[in-house]
Amino acid sequence: MTKNRLESFSDGVLAVIITIMVLEMKVPHGADLAAILPLLPVFASYVLSFIFIGVYWNNHHHLLHTVDHVTGGVLWANLHLLFWLSLVPFATGWMGENDFAPLPVALYGLLQLLAGFAFFLLVQALIRTHGRDSALATAIGRDFKGKTSLIVYTVAVPLSFFSAPLAFALYVTIAVVWLVPDRRFERALEGSR
Amino acid sequence: MTKNRLESFSDGVLAVIITIMVLEMKVPHGADLAAILPLLPVFASYVLSFIFIGVYWNNHHHLLHTVDHVTGGVLWANLHLLFWLSLVPFATGWMGENDFAPLPVALYGLLQLLAGFAFFLLVQALIRTHGRDSALATAIGRDFKGKTSLIVYTVAVPLSFFSAPLAFALYVTIAVVWLVPDRRFERALEGSR
Amino acid sequence: MTKNRLESFSDGVLAVIITIMVLEMKVPHGADLAAILPLLPVFASYVLSFIFIGVYWNNHHHLLHTVDHVTGGVLWANLHLLFWLSLVPFATGWMGENDFAPLPVALYGLLQLLAGFAFFLLVQALIRTHGRDSALATAIGRDFKGKTSLIVYTVAVPLSFFSAPLAFALYVTIAVVWLVPDRRFERALEGSR
Amino acid sequence: MTKNRLESFSDGVLAVIITIMVLEMKVPHGADLAAILPLLPVFASYVLSFIFIGVYWNNHHHLLHTVDHVTGGVLWANLHLLFWLSLVPFATGWMGENDFAPLPVALYGLLQLLAGFAFFLLVQALIRTHGRDSALATAIGRDFKGKTSLIVYTVAVPLSFFSAPLAFALYVTIAVVWLVPDRRFERALEGSR
Repeated sequence: MTKNRLESFSDGVLAVIITIMVLEMKVPHGADLAAILPLLPVFASYVLSFIFIGVYWNNHHHLLHTVDHVTGGVLWANLHLLFWLSLVPFATGWMGENDFAPLPVALYGLLQLLAGFAFFLLVQALIRTHGRDSALATAIGRDFKGKTSLIVYTVAVPLSFFSAPLAFALYVTIAVVWLVPDRRFERALEGSR
Repeated sequence: MTKNRLESFSDGVLAVIITIMVLEMKVPHGADLAAILPLLPVFASYVLSFIFIGVYWNNHHHLLHTVDHVTGGVLWANLHLLFWLSLVPFATGWMGENDFAPLPVALYGLLQLLAGFAFFLLVQALIRTHGRDSALATAIGRDFKGKTSLIVYTVAVPLSFFSAPLAFALYVTIAVVWLVPDRRFERALEGSR
Repeated sequence: MTKNRLESFSDGVLAVIITIMVLEMKVPHGADLAAILPLLPVFASYVLSFIFIGVYWNNHHHLLHTVDHVTGGVLWANLHLLFWLSLVPFATGWMGENDFAPLPVALYGLLQLLAGFAFFLLVQALIRTHGRDSALATAIGRDFKGKTSLIVYTVAVPLSFFSAPLAFALYVTIAVVWLVPDRRFERALEGSR
Repeated sequence: MTKNRLESFSDGVLAVIITIMVLEMKVPHGADLAAILPLLPVFASYVLSFIFIGVYWNNHHHLLHTVDHVTGGVLWANLHLLFWLSLVPFATGWMGENDFAPLPVALYGLLQLLAGFAFFLLVQALIRTHGRDSALATAIGRDFKGKTSLIVYTVAVPLSFFSAPLAFALYVTIAVVWLVPDRRFERALEGSR
């Protein structure tokens, strides 16, 4: 089975997710600073979510670039990932409109944890069909960054109820770490040539 | 006529449908459990609809993977299918926001029945252009799963008015059955090699 | 310049237009017939607009299937068409929510007239770059159906203020006429082989 | 790394942006001229934003048509551009609903300035990977139009607080200038053959 439609469907879903989030930033009725300033928390969570979805698209792009065929199991692992990501606009809006209150911040982190775990499952499904010594498996390696992110989220979610700003700071840290481009795939591909 | 644009347009429509459904889950104003718990029924119908659209995308992917050309009739059979699926976000929101009341549950089932029938018509249109002994026709076979689903929906729609939870349980059952990947196409393609 | 991205961008825009129209059908708060029946006019205009956008996608598909390169002028002619079509969800919602009152029905027809004229300009731009004796020009021929539609809209718009139902009936008639698949392109392509 | 998915993801995001802007034009409740006329400013800013997004899609199309591979840095430069463009529906709605008040007009211009600068960075990232004597670098040349636009926006943003109509007129002027198709790429490509 070819991977083209898996890529184009995922591109479509991620493109819609990243774009409709802006609809959660309701246009204010006034035209002065007092009308727009209360939107700052919503904007802050918008920026964070934009980066997260961008990172997922980027990693998805790199991941599928390395593989050459997909199975039925991969299709479902991919849909499972898209499911959690599809809830990001909701969690983003809820967190932003409530000024980073504990419960929304915890839910946001839980969603990122589940999406991160779903990406891990997708990688495993792809490695299962391509073999432990494929370019893909070599590129992923021990996946230090991915596993550390999951651990940080596991800590951040309960932490939200004690200090929501600290939990949010952890999310921002993870986003910044992932913004640094992932050279593993490019290096592995070059090495396998 | 090539099938590329049919696939990319369908991917686009299904990607938008599966993603804008989340807009029906309105961000609550409070930040505590009391604010988020009333959303549980909406979330439950969101999960169900996400699986249904995912199943349709999956089956659509498998179906068109088997064919090599499309006719004008196929284009319209495909648009007919997308029409019923485009109403899923509406039916999902209505069912969820009314705590699975009889009429919305019946409408939801009716929509699934019509979408299932439209998929059946699309398959027929494709078989007509590819012949009764094509890989496609062999892959579909007697289509036991598809036909049984239509019968179950036909029963579930009137059942909604006597026991909406029972009708909803039938929808969930069908979704679970379809979640099991459909090996028919892969097997048939292997057999034809 | 290749036509791939023109097709994929147009597919994306048309997919979003055809799908977000459903957001204009607001989920009613009640769960009985009295709550859903007032949505019937909105649903009727939704069906009509879905068919129109479907027809445009279909014709766009056929049109670009015949051509092999595009120019800067074609890109703008295409965007011009997408502009008028992007307003269809608005006009659909306004017409449906006001029970087919004269002004919204007239605006809807005006939009269809402008979109139809934009499609005509796109065809002309393509013929200019491919020549009067190209497969495209032969396929279009005298374009009886396209020109008649423009004339009918020109009549229907002012007619809306005297009898909105009659104007609406004209729109439905045009939609039905276009639903009949356009064999011109397929025939011309076969002839040119 | 191939450029296909970069193009299809960008096409998806731009297609959603250009289409969901229409959702900011809320369907009015009345059906007469008095109900629709107040929407004129929103419509005017919708038209302007549609042209701007169309120009960006057009330039993006031309730009990537010239290149043959992309790096991780290019992916992020592209996401950075899409980020600012994703805020256009919000800025469009805010400017339109407040009858072109100074602050929304200034914010709109600031967004265009940032998007223009992000496009400039994307061009630089592409030139860095393709070399100063590539078809791309030749096509861009001294980029008089791009740089002048950035200067005009830098003037227009503070100008908004003295005369918002004048600032808006500057935006319209830039849009009109860009509507004239950019022949540089086509000429450079022809020259390099």
